[in-house]
Formats: sequence, structure tokens, C-alpha cells
Amino acid sequence: MTSPEVYRVRAQALSDYEVAFVDDILDPAGSDLLRCGNRTEFRSRRRIAVLDENVNALHGSRIREYFERHGLECQYVVLPAGEPAKVMDTVLAVVAEFDRFGLDRRREPVITFGGGALLDLVGVATSMYRRGVPHVRVPTTLLGQVDAAIGAKTAVNHGAYKNRLGTFQQPAGVLIDRRFLATLDERHLRNGMAEIVKLAVVRDEQLFELLEEYGELLIEEKFQGSSPTGDRVARLVLQRAVHGMLAELEPNLWEHDLDRLVDFGHSVGPALEMRARGDLLHGESVAVDIALFTTLAAGRGLLADKAERRILDLLERLALPTGHDLLDDELLRRAMADTVRHRDGRQRLPVPVGIGTAVFLNDVSEEELRRAVRQRRCEAVPT
Amino acid sequence: MTSPEVYRVRAQALSDYEVAFVDDILDPAGSDLLRCGNRTEFRSRRRIAVLDENVNALHGSRIREYFERHGLECQYVVLPAGEPAKVMDTVLAVVAEFDRFGLDRRREPVITFGGGALLDLVGVATSMYRRGVPHVRVPTTLLGQVDAAIGAKTAVNHGAYKNRLGTFQQPAGVLIDRRFLATLDERHLRNGMAEIVKLAVVRDEQLFELLEEYGELLIEEKFQGSSPTGDRVARLVLQRAVHGMLAELEPNLWEHDLDRLVDFGHSVGPALEMRARGDLLHGESVAVDIALFTTLAAGRGLLADKAERRILDLLERLALPTGHDLLDDELLRRAMADTVRHRDGRQRLPVPVGIGTAVFLNDVSEEELRRAVRQRRCEAVPT
Repeated sequence: MTSPEVYRVRAQALSDYEVAFVDDILDPAGSDLLRCGNRTEFRSRRRIAVLDENVNALHGSRIREYFERHGLECQYVVLPAGEPAKVMDTVLAVVAEFDRFGLDRRREPVITFGGGALLDLVGVATSMYRRGVPHVRVPTTLLGQVDAAIGAKTAVNHGAYKNRLGTFQQPAGVLIDRRFLATLDERHLRNGMAEIVKLAVVRDEQLFELLEEYGELLIEEKFQGSSPTGDRVARLVLQRAVHGMLAELEPNLWEHDLDRLVDFGHSVGPALEMRARGDLLHGESVAVDIALFTTLAAGRGLLADKAERRILDLLERLALPTGHDLLDDELLRRAMADTVRHRDGRQRLPVPVGIGTAVFLNDVSEEELRRAVRQRRCEAVPT
Repeated sequence: MTSPEVYRVRAQALSDYEVAFVDDILDPAGSDLLRCGNRTEFRSRRRIAVLDENVNALHGSRIREYFERHGLECQYVVLPAGEPAKVMDTVLAVVAEFDRFGLDRRREPVITFGGGALLDLVGVATSMYRRGVPHVRVPTTLLGQVDAAIGAKTAVNHGAYKNRLGTFQQPAGVLIDRRFLATLDERHLRNGMAEIVKLAVVRDEQLFELLEEYGELLIEEKFQGSSPTGDRVARLVLQRAVHGMLAELEPNLWEHDLDRLVDFGHSVGPALEMRARGDLLHGESVAVDIALFTTLAAGRGLLADKAERRILDLLERLALPTGHDLLDDELLRRAMADTVRHRDGRQRLPVPVGIGTAVFLNDVSEEELRRAVRQRRCEAVPT
């Protein structure tokens, strides 16, 4: 109702973007990277490509060849890989490059090739520059492909807090090419696996079974499908992981609902990751968190012992940590306090009640958490 | 269409907020500030109030009394007023206060009392903290009340550029109380008037006529309605200005359409304002821009000479500048280049074709602009 004394503003925004699996995106004959997917059309021939140092070393020359071959004028920005660079200062360095280039508002996309940390931080820059310039995401790590690249979040770490500052920006397009995983080291493959395990536990039993049966093979073959079975399963697992994640995100893209199944693995994990200061990759902290709340659910009798065992076994077979010495009482208390603030005053802790199903708990006591941590610490495989 | 190879994500976001005129918001008996408007309900009794130094000196004790009287736990953050503070460093200082307070995600609103610059910069902080915490805006300047506070933009200046970084965030509520204008100096009243003139020229002839007849009276009475006529007109002008602005913003809240009438006054104005480094208030640079493109439109024969004269006369009677020495060829060229980038490769210059109607031009040459600038410089009232 709009009256002389009150004007009620109502507006609708539509998000519409595509996450596409593409084979060999850097093949000069291919047009996916040129078009940046199907849902956008960029009139200008100018581009900014942001790469992390690893991607630049491994794929930089093919990326440059691709854009040259297609006659695009492209400015390259090379940044450090990994979490330490994911801070506001790096965002401002990216902004300085946008200024130097003289970036237009809508028709000159920024294309980022890199892992989750780089995609997150460039996303902050693209969402803030002129209140939003288009961002095409090309994730080059497994974690980027199944998690960081495909939703609408952008983020930087700030102070002691993981992802404390960020925005929502729908990507202009997401192009997933598993060939990039061929150059990933094993630890980073396992790192991405943790997010797939998370998703499998809370919503997809079949995916869980695929990981049980083929997880080690996938890591061994780096998702490249050296064997016919490995090829079939690599495609299937990536697809189920991405589609499953998007099915969770799509109806709740701006997180109006804070009961989020995909927050499984992210209740005390982020604080642990920040405390470990680079010793733990994101997925590794997720694995510790998964193990902790799996044990807690079993301790309550919500999860059968056999299912608990299967989850912990899977993490262990993927060589992911299931406990951590840094997870002391004080960190636990601080982590839970901030998580409750982040979830607007309630715990909203996703815990599994079977393989592929989960519920939210709001009444977990410090003592119950400490008990689960102790149990994990006793049984955990040393990292 | 979602296939195994392409997942198409589609989501809708709804914005819904109210801009309310409130009389004496700090009256301890009133509940508007307590409720933060009608469309939101905050379960927590904790608040953060951000004030600029002027507001703190003039109204700080009443603000504190209000929250105390209502038993709210409130943390006060006092920041410098004006444009120089509107930078990323101040945003991070605000973020540090949020961290210190331990701000929840949804139930503890940030309430900002201040002018446009403060509202813009706190908006960047609230839109980025945890990817968005609720922000209630209480504009205390005329420019804030008719412009900065009521839309969805947030912004900070960066480098040489006005509003280079920012986001869109719908306010949790906007409360407009003209009593704050009683303590505003005359220059800042005239500053806000420029944005009202802008709106009147492009879309509201009746508002323009009200300004012609009563503009000086409104400034003299500081919108407080010391006389019955002054009171009636102050209400009417504020209402028409706010409703007119919102009618322009509402269907295009996220600026998907870059042909924006409300960009009148903002084509070369922002670059001029930044160049003048504090010597020009925002509204003053808007006035120079209005005069320039009014003259240009008349020079093309799009606007009758009589209408041109009325617009320039109104600006002059409101003691607003209609030309500026800093507007040299080089600044003009740089300003237009960036405006074209900001408007995605086209000029999209709103110019009046009558009092209350405007069109967009896309073919203005440097020479034509320079001619209009020279004409303005010759005739301009010295500032």
C-alpha cells in the first residue's frame, strides 16, 4: 500500500544463468569460452582474464592463444592462488586493474580461471565494481567445480573470520572442464572430494555409494577417465555433485532460509580452517566438521552406528582428516557462537540421520559437542 | 532447460520495503524508530546506531535517550560527515564495529542517522557483512531524504572515481523526518534542492512550479513550516520529490535499464565533484550538470529558450552554481569517457525537452559539449 505518508517499494529481480559442462574449453576450435555460455551475449571484443599463478604456469599460454586466435583484446591479471590472497586488499588490486583497463559496465566480461578462493575474491570485485560487472567463472579445481563457482556467493576473509565480507552476484556463466583436474595435485583432489562427500551424506545416497566404490579410482585417474569405468563414473559423479548442489541452492539463492543442508561441514569447520592458518585446506576442515557432527548424531541415536561407520570410513579412505588437535574447547565455543550469529540466533546444525538424509538440530550443548570432539580425537587418523 | 550437460539456474528475488514520512522520530513516545517501520520485525533488543559527527552533536543525546527509554541495548558508532569519509577504509572501520558488537545476521538492525555520504558508505558495510545485514536508514539531510536514502544503491568513492565501488541492498526501512532539516545549514539545504530540481525538470512540471514559487521560502523556513503556506508546501514538495524518485527507481531498482532519467545531473557532474575535492557539494555539481545539458538541449533546438531560461533562473534563485571553471576540455573528455563506460558503451544523456519531460541523446560530440560549457561559463553566476 502506498499512501502520502508511506511509499511501499516492491520490485522483482530475476536470476538466470547456466552451469555448463564443457570438454576442453581451451581447444582453439571451441566456441564455449568465446560465447561465455549460452545465456549471455557480449557485444564488445574486449575481455579481462584473471588467473591464479598455478593456472598461469600450467595453462597460461593456451589461454592467451585462445583469445588471440579469436581476435579478442584481453588484459591478463595474474594473482596468487589459495586462501591467503582472499582478502580485501587483493580485491582492491583487482579493481585497480579494472580501472586501468577502463572496464565497461555490461558488455566486457571478466573471466576468472582458478580455484575457489580466486573465484570468491574476484566475485567481490566484479559485484562491487560499478555495482556489478559480468563475471564468467571457469573453475580449475575440483572444489571450485562442485562448490565455489556454481552458486551466487562471493567472499573474502576478514580478520579472524572466514568469508566475513561478501555479496551475492549471479555469475554470467559457469564453464566446468574436468581437463583442468589433470594438473591438480592429489591433496587438492581430496580437498574437493570433501564437498562431494558432504552433499552425498545430506541428500544423495547413490552418490555416496559411487564414492564408496570409486572414490579412490577417481582420485587416481584425476577424473580424466583413463579407464572406461573411470570415465563413466567421473562424469556421473561430477554431474550428480553439481546438479545436487544447484538443486539445493536454486530455491534459496540469496539464503533467505538459513536452514541450509549444504551448511553441513561448515558449522565449526570455517573457524578451524582460519585457526589452522593455511595448514588445513577448506575441504579438509569440512571433513573434520562432517566427522564431528556425524559422531554427534550417532551419539544421540539419530544415526545408526553402521551409517556412522560408513561415513567415517569413506573420509578415511579418501585420506581426509576426521579430527584435529586445534579443535579445543575455546575454539569450539567461539566457532559455535559465531555460527549461531551467522544463522540469526539459532544453531541450525545439519546432522545426518542416514546416508542421504539429514535434520537440523538447535539444542546441542557445549558438553555434547566436546564429547563428540573427544571421541573423534581418540579415533581420528592423524593428519 | 536443464540437461545433463547444462544446468540452468533460475531464481526470483523480491524486494519489498517502505519509505515512510514520520513526524519527530526521536519523540520518546513514538514507536516508528522502535519498529523501524512496518515491514520488518526485529526479534532482538540489540541495535547498532551509526551517526555522523554533526548528528551526534545535534541529536546524539535524544537518540541515546530514545533507545534507553525503550530498553534497547545499543552500540553507537560516530563517524565523520561528508564525502571525504566515503571510502573503503571507513567501511572497514564500520565492519570492525560490527565484529566488536557481535552482530547477528538478520534480527539486529543497523540504524544510520546521517547524510547521503554516510548512508552510502554504511550501506556498503551492511550489504557486505555476512553478505547482508538489515539496514534502517534515517536521512538527516535534504539530499539524503529525497535521494541517497530511498533507493537500493550503496557506494564508496575509490581513486579518482565517484561511487566506483558499491552494491545494491534494499533498506530494511527508510524513515524521513523533516525536523532534522531544522539544524541543517543553508548550503546543505540548497544542495538537496538541486536533486529536487533535477527530478522536477525530467518528470514533474508541477513540482517545478512549486519550486519556482516557494523554493526560497522553503529554504528560509528550512522545511519546518513556520507559516501555514510554508508548511503545506514543505510537505507537498518532499512528498512529490520522494514519490517521484521512487516511481523512477522502483521498476528499475537494479538498473538493468541504463536509460535512466534520474541520471540527469549526473553525466559530467560526478567527475567535476571529484575534481573539486570538497569545494563542491554533490548537489552543486548536479546543478552545474543540469545547467550544462539544459543549455545543450536548447542549443539543439530541443528545448525552447523560455524553458531553458526558467531552469537556469530557478537554479540561480536557489543560489546553485550553473557553471564551473574546473570544467575544462580534459575533464570533460575524461568525464564523458567514464560515463559512456558506466552506461555500457552509449552516452544515454538525459536532456530536457520541456519542463517535466526529457529524452536521451547518444550522439553528442565533444565540440557540442565544449560549446555548451563555454556558454555556461560566460553566463554563469560566479560561485
